[in-house]
Amino acid sequence: MKKVAVILSGSGVFDGSEINEAVLTLLHLSKAGASYQCFAPDANQQHVINHLTGEEMNETRNILVEVARISRGEAKPLTELDATQFDAVILPGGFGAAKNLCNFAEQGAACELTQDVRNACEAFKKLGKPAGYMCIAPVMVPLVYGAGVQVTIGNDKDTAAAITAMGGKHVDCAVDGIVVDETHRVVTTPAYMLAQSLAEAEQGISKLVQQVLAMA
Amino acid sequence: MKKVAVILSGSGVFDGSEINEAVLTLLHLSKAGASYQCFAPDANQQHVINHLTGEEMNETRNILVEVARISRGEAKPLTELDATQFDAVILPGGFGAAKNLCNFAEQGAACELTQDVRNACEAFKKLGKPAGYMCIAPVMVPLVYGAGVQVTIGNDKDTAAAITAMGGKHVDCAVDGIVVDETHRVVTTPAYMLAQSLAEAEQGISKLVQQVLAMA
Repeated sequence: MKKVAVILSGSGVFDGSEINEAVLTLLHLSKAGASYQCFAPDANQQHVINHLTGEEMNETRNILVEVARISRGEAKPLTELDATQFDAVILPGGFGAAKNLCNFAEQGAACELTQDVRNACEAFKKLGKPAGYMCIAPVMVPLVYGAGVQVTIGNDKDTAAAITAMGGKHVDCAVDGIVVDETHRVVTTPAYMLAQSLAEAEQGISKLVQQVLAMA
Repeated sequence: MKKVAVILSGSGVFDGSEINEAVLTLLHLSKAGASYQCFAPDANQQHVINHLTGEEMNETRNILVEVARISRGEAKPLTELDATQFDAVILPGGFGAAKNLCNFAEQGAACELTQDVRNACEAFKKLGKPAGYMCIAPVMVPLVYGAGVQVTIGNDKDTAAAITAMGGKHVDCAVDGIVVDETHRVVTTPAYMLAQSLAEAEQGISKLVQQVLAMA
């Protein structure tokens, strides 16, 4: 049974992981007979957004504690992620990926990964183990893999330009497709950067999961 | 295109809707080409549970605001649910169904529905429109449909006994099955009352969604 680490960033598209992407990832791992363990930074979210109004709330929420809502209580601090114990890693999207795992939402192409995220993602790279990044999470890929790595976030021109400025090679991709960088062993898909429905999101996410498992 | 109202109770299995059940419901509605609208009570959750530790937190969260995390910002107050505008209603489970939609978690067989939930669910019954309830949510069915209605929550003896005490007829059911009460037009499935994985949960939930749509 292949074991996959899933790195999440909260629970809700506007300040954490996109819940549908997270669940679709776990669903397709489960359907493929793989096991998974969710990880998240044990730190406060950048902020808390009222998802009904879009306004910031005067609250503090811990990323790991909120992630446990998606994973039915089973989540571990990202510092405990030992890449030698897993066959692959997958990072779903949502604004949390760009706010809580790196600071792309604020800094754009000048963004940096948090130290915990850098340690975890670089460990998979060093071991040559495959990684999947979806939605906005692929903006982190050039920071981990360096210049020339191929990724997609769909076809958003500004985000693609930021990836290019960071040294990545952006490839336009439809919602039901994936981009595979065989050299770096990285798989990306647009998910809710393009998806208009759960059924659309599932098409690319299921392919990403299957490809990552095939390379693991 | 069939339109389905989905009534949620928060965002997280221990104090709200079971997120995986909610997303699987929306996924299979989407895959079947149906449209959906999420509704929830515009009221505070009974309490807030830290999903990592299981302990109560000193916080207040609004059910509708938290539900919007699952539905990417699109959710409406349950008081705005007009059953004449929908073809069916589905209620996923999670402790929120037993804490925020009724008080089964505290009162057992003596529980009552909140007024908003009673109004919404009875409206679908009066119009003869089909309804799906999953996981623990079927404990509400006897309160809506009265004595003799057939439901399943899987095979938990205590919960089944409570349903019997409330006038319902409990039918044991496997995780990949559904129970259909053709007379009352109610479909139920155990979901995470029995599921050991997302792949297992999906089997019963997809059948429930398909059956509800077939009856709509």
